[in-house]
Amino acid sequence: MKALVFHGPGLKSWDSVPDPRIQDPTDVIVQIDTTTICGSDLHILKGDVASVKPGTILGHEGVGTVVEVGKDAGKFAVGDRVVVPAITTCGTCAYCRVGKAAHCMSTGVGGWVLGNATNGTQAEYVRVPFGETSLHRIPADLTDAEIIYVSDIIPTAYEMGVQNGQVAPGDTVVVIGAGPVGLSAMLTSQFMSPKRIIAVDLDDNRLEQAVAHFGATHAVNSGREGWMDEVRALSPVGGANVVIEAVGIPSTLEAAFDLVRPCGRVANIGVHGHPVTVPMDRLWIANITITMGLVNGVTAPMLIDLIEAGRLDIKPLTTHTFTLDQFEQAYDVFSHAAANDALKVLVTR
Amino acid sequence: MKALVFHGPGLKSWDSVPDPRIQDPTDVIVQIDTTTICGSDLHILKGDVASVKPGTILGHEGVGTVVEVGKDAGKFAVGDRVVVPAITTCGTCAYCRVGKAAHCMSTGVGGWVLGNATNGTQAEYVRVPFGETSLHRIPADLTDAEIIYVSDIIPTAYEMGVQNGQVAPGDTVVVIGAGPVGLSAMLTSQFMSPKRIIAVDLDDNRLEQAVAHFGATHAVNSGREGWMDEVRALSPVGGANVVIEAVGIPSTLEAAFDLVRPCGRVANIGVHGHPVTVPMDRLWIANITITMGLVNGVTAPMLIDLIEAGRLDIKPLTTHTFTLDQFEQAYDVFSHAAANDALKVLVTR
Repeated sequence: MKALVFHGPGLKSWDSVPDPRIQDPTDVIVQIDTTTICGSDLHILKGDVASVKPGTILGHEGVGTVVEVGKDAGKFAVGDRVVVPAITTCGTCAYCRVGKAAHCMSTGVGGWVLGNATNGTQAEYVRVPFGETSLHRIPADLTDAEIIYVSDIIPTAYEMGVQNGQVAPGDTVVVIGAGPVGLSAMLTSQFMSPKRIIAVDLDDNRLEQAVAHFGATHAVNSGREGWMDEVRALSPVGGANVVIEAVGIPSTLEAAFDLVRPCGRVANIGVHGHPVTVPMDRLWIANITITMGLVNGVTAPMLIDLIEAGRLDIKPLTTHTFTLDQFEQAYDVFSHAAANDALKVLVTR
Repeated sequence: MKALVFHGPGLKSWDSVPDPRIQDPTDVIVQIDTTTICGSDLHILKGDVASVKPGTILGHEGVGTVVEVGKDAGKFAVGDRVVVPAITTCGTCAYCRVGKAAHCMSTGVGGWVLGNATNGTQAEYVRVPFGETSLHRIPADLTDAEIIYVSDIIPTAYEMGVQNGQVAPGDTVVVIGAGPVGLSAMLTSQFMSPKRIIAVDLDDNRLEQAVAHFGATHAVNSGREGWMDEVRALSPVGGANVVIEAVGIPSTLEAAFDLVRPCGRVANIGVHGHPVTVPMDRLWIANITITMGLVNGVTAPMLIDLIEAGRLDIKPLTTHTFTLDQFEQAYDVFSHAAANDALKVLVTR
């Protein structure tokens, strides 16, 4: 088959590689019909993720069709359309049993392993470990484009942003970063009926998208002087109830601490490469809660239900579509997202 | 009356001052029968708390007898024995209505104002703003020594440590700092039936007290090389479920991040004077929750109930007792707590 292979920092190519095979009886082999590229893939290509070895097929998001089923994954059958989740779950370890699959203790096969410790979804076929406990069947009436981001960014935004941030009716929610994950946090924050969703980003196009399609009630460009005062003027006395950080650099998380009110929540979704200074001399008294983490994916069935019910529309996240043999072009566009007005790029069979 | 008056950094004295009077109809005047000294009083004396002006009577903890009642505080009557809480609550603002009295919006009279923005409890008498919504009546069969720490450190430890840390049955709980607040966190962690409570401190006497009287199952001296490995060896794979920080310096909070397991909680109780570096490059993926804050005091009625029921014994916190006219001597002992094997000092009428 053909696949997008990582060859070390800065190096990747669309190569001919062996087809994946069932290795464990719980494996399921899925033909990839639609996949996409994640910001983490760009981190890997920069050499930031030490667990990814040269020779690994990238990608941890995908929609596809089951083509082979291990003998212990009998809930699925050849021909089933499925979402391949970023996080695979053994279903039996101490973490998986309490819904914390991000920390699945089955090393190398559970947790975030696809496109990381093992070959991923940017390929014609992928081996999914723990297929029965990990894959999600897709309702027949949904297209790939309507469901694909349930692999990762939608549950990431909902679980690590909205749930961890405890977004509640009437809240003022600030989302710092209007990239695909930040926009997904705005989209899913709406489940909880906040009063205001304030989108913050440096890119005016993304801010326009945020308001037009993702539920932001206000947009503030953080390149403008005094942008924090603009956000404060839109917030209740003392600051926002919830600040969701969806960038992953020290300055944006530090801004979150300046924008949250006493008793508020700062929900970090961003992937950080550096330590962050927390002003505990000011915050110890502020009764705020700071959360962070990798998605568990346990809300995927609920999210699929809401999509099917017409209550969650993730299609506006897709700005560009390519075919598998155009994968390197897809990377070029996604790597220069702002210049291309790109959000997510779909790559289809 | 006589009172312990702050005269600027490093300066205090037991002075003759005017008796407090009812200023607002919700005020209650309480004769102090027993009071104590808090670590925050030492911070104030160092000049660390800008809101405390010279001339202020210190103290925010006390048990006493009602001697005068404002016309809008009629739930109390002259002669009632009461706990004076560190936090006064207006009962009507947006924060107080949801039990977040630490952030009472009635500036200067609600929240932590006693011994801070207004005169405190280290005196023969104190004016308690919002007396009706703030004071707690004491069951007749309880002595002052059995109840005094419900003013502050017991609810502080329970609300900011045990509740924020979500201590749960079977957990391994690490408490860094075995001073009065850390010991109170060990005491109240037991409500939730953790499997282990590991006390960490530099002082062997405090560690012995922790095990003898406060429910610690293990004690680790953090002055020993390899102390973190000792704690890890006592913890489940990956680390402790909950780490409660009860010191308030960067190194102890940073240690908490090294000792907590994925999906665990770091509950900060310490009062910090400096920013803290959080290793977000390592923790973003760890699904941990960090909490911090000032006590609200809303659990005081429950805590009094448990004391009356014989389920909570706070008496071992008291190591020294003085009379009001020995207040400066009490400060000397408490300021050199380790040298005096002191935990809390009681000061009685």
